[in-house]
This record gives sequence, C-alpha cells and structure tokens, in this order.
Amino acid sequence: MEIELITIGTELLLGQVLDTHQQWLGRRLAERGRPLARQITVPDHGPAICGAVQTALGRADLVITTGGLGPTDDDLTRRLLADLLGRPLGQDASVAAHIEGFFRQRNRPMPESVLVQAQVPEGAVVFPNRHGTAPGLAIEVAPNPFGDGSEPAWLILLPGPTRELRPMFDEQVLPFVEKRWPQREAFHCRILRSLGIGESAVEETLREPLRLLLVRGLELGYCARIGQVDIRLSGCGPDMPAILDEAETAVRALIGKHIYGMGDETIAEAVVAQLTAAGETLAVAESCTGGLLGHHITNVPGASAVFAGGALSYSNAMKQKLLGVSESTLAEHGAVSKPVALEMAEGALEAGGADHALSVTGIAGPDGGTPEKPVGTVWLGLASTGRRPVALRKFHPFDREAFKHATVHQALNLLGRRLQKNS
Amino acid sequence: MEIELITIGTELLLGQVLDTHQQWLGRRLAERGRPLARQITVPDHGPAICGAVQTALGRADLVITTGGLGPTDDDLTRRLLADLLGRPLGQDASVAAHIEGFFRQRNRPMPESVLVQAQVPEGAVVFPNRHGTAPGLAIEVAPNPFGDGSEPAWLILLPGPTRELRPMFDEQVLPFVEKRWPQREAFHCRILRSLGIGESAVEETLREPLRLLLVRGLELGYCARIGQVDIRLSGCGPDMPAILDEAETAVRALIGKHIYGMGDETIAEAVVAQLTAAGETLAVAESCTGGLLGHHITNVPGASAVFAGGALSYSNAMKQKLLGVSESTLAEHGAVSKPVALEMAEGALEAGGADHALSVTGIAGPDGGTPEKPVGTVWLGLASTGRRPVALRKFHPFDREAFKHATVHQALNLLGRRLQKNS
Repeated sequence: MEIELITIGTELLLGQVLDTHQQWLGRRLAERGRPLARQITVPDHGPAICGAVQTALGRADLVITTGGLGPTDDDLTRRLLADLLGRPLGQDASVAAHIEGFFRQRNRPMPESVLVQAQVPEGAVVFPNRHGTAPGLAIEVAPNPFGDGSEPAWLILLPGPTRELRPMFDEQVLPFVEKRWPQREAFHCRILRSLGIGESAVEETLREPLRLLLVRGLELGYCARIGQVDIRLSGCGPDMPAILDEAETAVRALIGKHIYGMGDETIAEAVVAQLTAAGETLAVAESCTGGLLGHHITNVPGASAVFAGGALSYSNAMKQKLLGVSESTLAEHGAVSKPVALEMAEGALEAGGADHALSVTGIAGPDGGTPEKPVGTVWLGLASTGRRPVALRKFHPFDREAFKHATVHQALNLLGRRLQKNS
Repeated sequence: MEIELITIGTELLLGQVLDTHQQWLGRRLAERGRPLARQITVPDHGPAICGAVQTALGRADLVITTGGLGPTDDDLTRRLLADLLGRPLGQDASVAAHIEGFFRQRNRPMPESVLVQAQVPEGAVVFPNRHGTAPGLAIEVAPNPFGDGSEPAWLILLPGPTRELRPMFDEQVLPFVEKRWPQREAFHCRILRSLGIGESAVEETLREPLRLLLVRGLELGYCARIGQVDIRLSGCGPDMPAILDEAETAVRALIGKHIYGMGDETIAEAVVAQLTAAGETLAVAESCTGGLLGHHITNVPGASAVFAGGALSYSNAMKQKLLGVSESTLAEHGAVSKPVALEMAEGALEAGGADHALSVTGIAGPDGGTPEKPVGTVWLGLASTGRRPVALRKFHPFDREAFKHATVHQALNLLGRRLQKNS
C-alpha cells in the first residue's frame, strides 16, 4: 500500500514552524511496515491544497493531511476537500457537543466560529479529539476520480497541533489503517536504544555479526540523535520473531552495556521504571542544565513516587545555600570541578532525603570557557546512600541546547547503569 | 517567482532524521520576500526523484533539491538529473582539486569513489563547498521541456549535510537568486507573538479593525502553538512599511496586553531581556513543571547574569526544606493552593536573594486529580522585593508535557507583564 502525507500550513513554508509531523508520522508508519512514499507541504491556499490532494489521490492508497482544520479563516482544509470530493458538510451533533463541553469545562466563552469544526463531510468516519476541538476525519474516495478508476483511495484529515494529532493517530488512526489494510505478512519491528556510542561505531561493530541474519530477511536501520543511536531490527514473515530474537541477542552481546531501553522508551522512562522497581528515590542538583534533568524525569507519569526534587543551583550562592557546597571548595576548584560536583550530589542526597542524587555542573556557552575548561566541559556527580559518590568529566562542544540534552542523557545513564548493577 | 524545494532522502520519510532544511531554507527565502511555494520529500529512488523534479520544473521558476550528492551508492541525484535534462557529465578540474585537497589537508587517504562528486553537468554553475566535498550546482533548463515552453526554469542542487548546505546557501545561492530574479517590489513581514489568548479570539478581535488594511494589500496569518498565537503581518510594495505600522498599532491597541514579543523571540528571551535591561534577577520554585521553567530561562544565552536558580520542590518535604513552606499551610490547603504558591514564591525570593521569584504548583496528571482540583489545575505565584506577592489559578487539562509548557509560558508571561509595567 502507498501512503502520502500532505502537511498544510503557510507557516511551515515560511519557516516559522518546524514540521515535526513528517518525522513522527513517518516513524510510526515505518515501525508498522507501512513507510511513507512521499511527503508534500503546501500553503493555506485553496488551489495548492486541492492540487496536491488530487495528485496524491491519483497515486496513493491513502493520503493523510495535517492542519487547516481549525476555526479561523485560513483553516481551509475541511471545506475545500469536502467540495473537491463532492461531499456536503453537515453538523455532527456529537462533535458539536464535545466542542461546547470543551469550552464549558475551561470556563471560557465559546466563539460561534468554533462550531465550524463540527461540520463533517457526508459519510466520513469521525475520530474524536480528546485534546482539542477539531476531530480527525476519514473519507473513502470511491469511485476515485483522480486515479485510474480501478482502486478506491482513502483520505484522512488530521488536526495540526501535535498534542491533538499524536494521541489521535496512535489511538484511532493506526488501528483504522491496520484494520483497513491488513498486512499479508506480519511485520515485526524491535528498536534497541543505545547511549554513549557513536553511529559508525555501532554500525561497524554489528555489520559482520549480523550479516547472516540480513540474508534471512532481517532489515537493520540506525537512527542517530544527540548522544544516542537507535538500532532498528525489522522484517516480515513467520520466521521473523525468531530472527529478531537472534539479532537482539547478538546486539546485546556486542554493545549491551550501551543499551538502555527498547521501543519508544526514553532514558528517563527507563530510570524511573528502575527506581520504581527498586522502591528507591532520586534527587537532583542542576547547574548548567538549568532544570532539563528534572523536566525529563517529571515527564514520566508516576515520577512523583520516586522523584524528590532538587535544586537549580545556577549561582554559586545557591550551591552553598541549598546544597551546602563549601565556599572554600568553590574558591579552590571553581564551580565546574569534580569536588563541586561531588558536594552538589551529596547535598542533594541529604536535602531530598533520597536514595540517589545526580548533580551536573558545566559550561554551556557561548561564553564562560577557559583553555583548561573550554565551553562544553561538564562534571556529572552521583551520590547514593551508603556508597562513595562518584564524578565523571564529559565534553560536549555543541550549541547550548544540544549541550544540555547530551548532558542530561549521560547523567540519567550514569544512574541507570548503577541501578542495573544493583538489581 | 515561484520556488519549490525537494528534499531527497529515504531516512526523512522513515522518520529517522528530522528534516530541518525546509524550515531553514523556507525562512531564509521568506525573509527576502521569496517564500517557498511548495516542499516535497521523496525517497532515494530514481523514478520518485525524477518525477518530483519534472513536475516541479513544470510549475516553478526555481527548483531546489537537497541531498543525494555524496559518493555512496544511494546518492543518485547528480547523475539522475543530468540524464533527465540531457546534460552529459564531465569532470570539473577545480572541484577535483578541491576534493583531493580536502583529504590531503585531513591526512586521510582518498577513496577513488569520492571523485564522482567532481562530475558536473554541462553548462552548470558550480557552487564550491567550503565544508565538504560535493559542490552545489545550478542548471538553467532552457528550453524547459516540462513547462508550457514559454519560460525557462532553473534547477539548483545542494548537498544534504546542514553544515555544508547553510553556508553555501547564504554565501553563494542567495546572491545568485537575488541577482537572477531581482525583486520588483520589496517584501515586508512582521510577526507579533501573543500569549494567553486563543487563536479564534485573536482572529475575531482583529478581523473587522484590520479589514481596510487587507484591502490595501496586507496579508494576515495566524500560527497557534501551545498557549501561544503568532500574528503574521506581511505584504509587498512601497506602501507596505506604513501599512504594517498601522496594522501593528491596531493589533497592539486591541490585544496589546497579550503581545510579549516580535519575530522569533520566545517568551523566555523576552523576559531575560527585560530582566537584563532592568538589572534585576529571578529565582524559581517549581513543583509540577519539574525544571521546565528553569530550562526555558537557561536556554537563553546570557541568562546566568539574571537567573539565580531555584528549587525543584517536587515533594512536600522539599517545599518545606528548601523554600520554608510551612507544614500547617500544606496540611490546611494542600500543595496545590494559593497559600502554598505564595509561600513558595516568597521562599525562592529569599533563598535566591533575587528581585523576583516565580512559583508553580499544580497537578500534571494523569493521576492525582480531585473534583475540586482536577488534573490540569495549577497555581502560579509571583513575589517581588518590596511588593505583595500575587497568585493566579489556571487550568490546562492537557497531556503532561503540554500542561508543563502552557504553565511555563504563563508563568513567564506573569513576570513579563510585571516587568513591562515597571519599565
């Protein structure tokens, strides 16, 4: 089956907004063996939207659009495509009730204009929107006037906002697609997530040992992010689960110490799960990461059971006041140093009454570097009750945000490895 | 003039890599009044690449491709498009010398295969690559067999790696484009960023008052993000700067208290700039946002001069220990309450020795809600030296991460408005 994605929005072409739908939807579909064949971005402009959808319906089995379902005048998608396909729009009572409830719950007056989002093309499947007002819509185009006439096509319209689109896609659209286009051969996919090893090192280490499995149909893919590499093992057919087992065993034997999780699991999710299983708690002391470590941990539902909190000890005064770092240590070694990282971790452990504490102190840049401690230098500390604290020096000469992300991943990995050893 | 962008790469469609070229190139071109008309992503697959380029050359004056110029087997772009246009490839001596020098300079042996990158289609303009080996190429398609024959088109091929593409585009491609297609009328664009008002409310408020300016050529666009709406005012011609001034004045008169910044400015950047200008400092006390507030602030280069840090008082014990919130207040009102938000802000102000302190305490969910305080409830506090602290109740019944983002934006806006009034 062929799937095309059309992302609609002038703001995407003007570069005001980064299109993350392509990557997210592309990955979701690829993981289920249905890779995107093509992606197109068009502006909020009638002829451009219709032209792109028409051409795509002439080629693909399924065309997915994102955006343009909102209540404002530049939200053209619903009406345009209903017209293009000759489907009259009618108000859907349950969608209208949902929209009214949405505003009532928030104690906000409802502008009349938002009810345009309850207009549904005749015969369309409605995907309710748990996180917003515009529902998703699926329309069967049969007969298909844009193709060669032999095959019907489907058009699925999704809302643009990420927090609305993603749960709708996972909960409603994927099951719809999998039911409508069942796969002849089951597709299997397993993703191993690694940290602290480069993409080419991963590839060189795995290439030879996995060669025989590739001959048997295994597909191997890599995806590198800041400081992380995902290893994607996939393939079709009844033998594939056994082949994936073999492949996973081989990968773990070769680079197991770098593997922290599976599938979509983030390093923070893995660490929170480990802490929860162990019944242990964590505190943090963040300097250069400025809260990103705590943010990652608290993104995990249920984190409150294992996360005590901590200190954003951005200034030296805060390091002393909240964490008890000694003035002499700061004066002698500087804020970005092993002794300060250790004292920060011990201070957070004590303040949080926690079982473990992570500390981070470094130079994010662009200013503040010296020849001995250039921008990108960072010390990570880990203290655990009843053990000697440890500290690690790392170097991430990236831009400010990439520096923070790489540092947070490594700090979590430092704790993750300790918890792994303990279990 | 019409410009289309074709990003080439299977990894983009599989979601392994986020396509950032579209945003970056789109913004660069829009800033110069030459917005992208369309963007297409195709896989590393001959017919898909040729089909997309052919169709685009039939529509646009300029087609830009990115990717597929490297030395490996899946780099198809150069040969395919030379064939498509009937331009024989020949070795360019200066490009070959550059490639050889590139390897020599790095003391690396040069694989023969890389010299394929010195192959240049007959008559092409060469853009040397300062940061890599594959040059960019511009080819005039005249006569244009894919259009209606009346107008020639240009095809520009750019290398995929970001660090090669961006300087090449700024230093060579933009000057080439501006010389080849001089602008008849200058393009002007102004973006106002708002917070705390919904997209449809913005539109309903602005529609009538701006109607006359729309008739005079103003283009008005909206872009909604979590809790934010960007208002884009743009247009062409000599009168446009005056029209934009009028439009901006009208927008500010109508919803000025919601406007926090212009252009690319984030609310955190606006607040850090205001604090820097005032010579004042900020501390934070974060509960449910778990560090995201500090993260946003410390993403701004130079934040260290105005940000003292703060407490991640996730647990009640931390609220007492680091911020001095009283046990009786917690027992009487609960952690998510006005009195606790006020005590947290005052505690952070004192601990940080700061001029202002923001506090956040709420229920991110998915668990922990009650009928009186459902998931999504949040209290924001603001304390400033010499003033009575204030607190605001908000409700963001979103998923965990959207809840945190909306809350952080509102907290920053609360401070931003106080700083605006002070100045």
